[in-house]
Amino acid sequence: MLFLVRMDVSLPHDMPPAVADDIKSREKAYAQDLQRSGKWVHLYRVVGEYANYSVFDVESNDELHGLLSSLPLFPYMKIKVTPLARHPSSIA
Amino acid sequence: MLFLVRMDVSLPHDMPPAVADDIKSREKAYAQDLQRSGKWVHLYRVVGEYANYSVFDVESNDELHGLLSSLPLFPYMKIKVTPLARHPSSIA
Amino acid sequence: MLFLVRMDVSLPHDMPPAVADDIKSREKAYAQDLQRSGKWVHLYRVVGEYANYSVFDVESNDELHGLLSSLPLFPYMKIKVTPLARHPSSIA
Amino acid sequence: MLFLVRMDVSLPHDMPPAVADDIKSREKAYAQDLQRSGKWVHLYRVVGEYANYSVFDVESNDELHGLLSSLPLFPYMKIKVTPLARHPSSIA
Amino acid sequence: MLFLVRMDVSLPHDMPPAVADDIKSREKAYAQDLQRSGKWVHLYRVVGEYANYSVFDVESNDELHGLLSSLPLFPYMKIKVTPLARHPSSIA
Amino acid sequence: MLFLVRMDVSLPHDMPPAVADDIKSREKAYAQDLQRSGKWVHLYRVVGEYANYSVFDVESNDELHGLLSSLPLFPYMKIKVTPLARHPSSIA
Amino acid sequence: MLFLVRMDVSLPHDMPPAVADDIKSREKAYAQDLQRSGKWVHLYRVVGEYANYSVFDVESNDELHGLLSSLPLFPYMKIKVTPLARHPSSIA
Amino acid sequence: MLFLVRMDVSLPHDMPPAVADDIKSREKAYAQDLQRSGKWVHLYRVVGEYANYSVFDVESNDELHGLLSSLPLFPYMKIKVTPLARHPSSIA
Amino acid sequence: MLFLVRMDVSLPHDMPPAVADDIKSREKAYAQDLQRSGKWVHLYRVVGEYANYSVFDVESNDELHGLLSSLPLFPYMKIKVTPLARHPSSIA
Amino acid sequence: MLFLVRMDVSLPHDMPPAVADDIKSREKAYAQDLQRSGKWVHLYRVVGEYANYSVFDVESNDELHGLLSSLPLFPYMKIKVTPLARHPSSIA
Repeated sequence: MLFLVRMDVSLPHDMPPAVADDIKSREKAYAQDLQRSGKWVHLYRVVGEYANYSVFDVESNDELHGLLSSLPLFPYMKIKVTPLARHPSSIA
Repeated sequence: MLFLVRMDVSLPHDMPPAVADDIKSREKAYAQDLQRSGKWVHLYRVVGEYANYSVFDVESNDELHGLLSSLPLFPYMKIKVTPLARHPSSIA
Repeated sequence: MLFLVRMDVSLPHDMPPAVADDIKSREKAYAQDLQRSGKWVHLYRVVGEYANYSVFDVESNDELHGLLSSLPLFPYMKIKVTPLARHPSSIA
Repeated sequence: MLFLVRMDVSLPHDMPPAVADDIKSREKAYAQDLQRSGKWVHLYRVVGEYANYSVFDVESNDELHGLLSSLPLFPYMKIKVTPLARHPSSIA
Repeated sequence: MLFLVRMDVSLPHDMPPAVADDIKSREKAYAQDLQRSGKWVHLYRVVGEYANYSVFDVESNDELHGLLSSLPLFPYMKIKVTPLARHPSSIA
Repeated sequence: MLFLVRMDVSLPHDMPPAVADDIKSREKAYAQDLQRSGKWVHLYRVVGEYANYSVFDVESNDELHGLLSSLPLFPYMKIKVTPLARHPSSIA
Repeated sequence: MLFLVRMDVSLPHDMPPAVADDIKSREKAYAQDLQRSGKWVHLYRVVGEYANYSVFDVESNDELHGLLSSLPLFPYMKIKVTPLARHPSSIA
Repeated sequence: MLFLVRMDVSLPHDMPPAVADDIKSREKAYAQDLQRSGKWVHLYRVVGEYANYSVFDVESNDELHGLLSSLPLFPYMKIKVTPLARHPSSIA
Repeated sequence: MLFLVRMDVSLPHDMPPAVADDIKSREKAYAQDLQRSGKWVHLYRVVGEYANYSVFDVESNDELHGLLSSLPLFPYMKIKVTPLARHPSSIA
Repeated sequence: MLFLVRMDVSLPHDMPPAVADDIKSREKAYAQDLQRSGKWVHLYRVVGEYANYSVFDVESNDELHGLLSSLPLFPYMKIKVTPLARHPSSIA
């Protein structure tokens, strides 16, 4: 089941760089694990913004919330979730 | 080069059904041609809305505008285009 | 799987009353069937507005879109879907 | 009398974890008491967001404001209240 | 129980004047009855706009929706309802 | 001359409680004086929010601004003022 | 007493030109009378838009509403009124 | 003196094609004259939308309004004007 | 050449009063100089808000930006500039 | 390939002036290099705001994101990117 997810990140300006780097590297590892697992299907950078559009493929809303709320950057994110369905014109 | 495109469709209520059906079938054929050509990479229905999120893969802005403005439903669409770049955490 | 759905209805002012009444009665029958089936779990009127908040319990996004897009009033509705997950403080 | 309530929580980033945990646990206890009392009828997590949609069943506006403003997390919440009425198509 | 209600009216430009006048006079009669009954407590014109802010005193959400949806101008109104509670600094 | 005024209050989280309490008590005293003087005609709490809707009866815009900008909580308020006129259907 | 008023005009596309011209000429005459009377103090065109910003000097909200709602173009206008007070730095 | 101007065009769906084509061709001729005159400095199509971003170089606000309000498509346009100044980092 | 300028001021709550007072007094002196020079034509307080609407009369966009960006309060202001043109109904 | 980019800058009020000046001078040098390289085609100051509108000419979305995210002021910017295409009426 597919969901489009927009994530906008804003880290506090006074966060020590080392702390920020640690969170980002944990975030990257976490995101790459989920991509390898097939849950995180697409991950695109929004040009010019510290934001991404992603597509997730999950079994349920609860699973999706679990995945998103476990993102290391979650406390610093504004997330918008749009449920997707099969389009009648799609050939996929 | 990837772009996320949101398309919201609103047909006039007083459009004769036959006219609407004709436009929709031409739209479907056009969309499926572009998918087969690889230009229209993803096409998802937004749950509950006469709208879609799509990902296009094109060579230039001009090409994308040409494809979108040739959509049979174009005159009845509100379209929003978001340019996408490669995300540093993407494994694609 | 639960979704919160807001539906705002606006019928064209020049729609003949008989046509409007027919759509509304089919809408009511359809809504009551879905409630009896357990799909449409809650249906509330927004005070002062020709709108409702509903909670649907479905197996997938596609099923939800099928149910919503089959609403007789669908062409005259603005619909917003919010996926819901289990709240850690919920005792339900 | 039913009200739909959306609560968006944002805790200051520099709040000591222990303080945050204390507020959250008092919040959980408070929410579960109200659910057991029948006042807090539904409590759903908004997927991907530190937010919930709830339905309250109270005797008056004043009672609802009392319940909401006593939430331990109230100072860190943005709350939106929508009064609900019985929908003519509801079979509840 | 008090509610603040904002009503914005927009009549179709092509509505025959006689029809419009009829609705307006029924609206006025209806509004004055409700004021005399004590339900419609305050009725103010928003300066420069075909809109009003009103305060209703009713027993329940359902009663308020009944009163509002029976307004002759209801089909041509955008209505926003804000539930009010007693303010701790009010001397009323 | 009547004005509808919405006031949304947000105190800094790191304001010492004693300071906050002092401002609030001066605010309450000030608000009650103005109510007794007839200037502050209605004061309602917006359910679920640290906000109020009020109606002021003043001689001029300047007087209203003087009253509002002297509120002890003024530096922590977002205020929206809507001038009101007599509604043709009002029986007041 | 001063008010800033923004007026956005949108005439129906299918309004016969003669009707539109008549309303506009009555609007111009009305506006110039009010300027000569000192009520309509400033009248500026918003560059690129069928809109104006004006400053009115009136005795009361009711007077202002009377003047604005009598504008021949009033039914085709979206109007926003902002009450103005004397600025402490103004030398006027 | 430079201004950024965004123009969004929406023609009525029921406008006869011949009428629309006539307006568009007059619009094109007018736009090309202004470009040749140096007034209309840049004209870009917004990808996916019946809209453009343009830069005008004019002597005054009044001149700009005259140019914009004379656009054949002006009655069908939503226009937003942003005055531009020289940027301290610009090498132009 | 006239411009309408809206300025919303928000000073940091933790700014030492002496610093704030110094900026405000320099702001007042600066504003009064510009009014005496004829550049700052009108300066009105928005009732209930730490904001003003002003009208500037300048020779160019660049001059206006220079004047505005030199405001002592500029770093604490949200400014919106609307270019104004002569209204065909104005008798000024 | 052209993109319109709006950049709104907001530096933390408590940033030491020396730090701010350093970032700004690096920003200026970076911006002027890109202008000399032809990538940053136009750079305009938005009158009255710490913001600019720019036009970039790049080979791809990825290149644009690389250029923008390398701006020294990037962490303090809100950026909005609009892809541009050739306008059929443009004579450029």
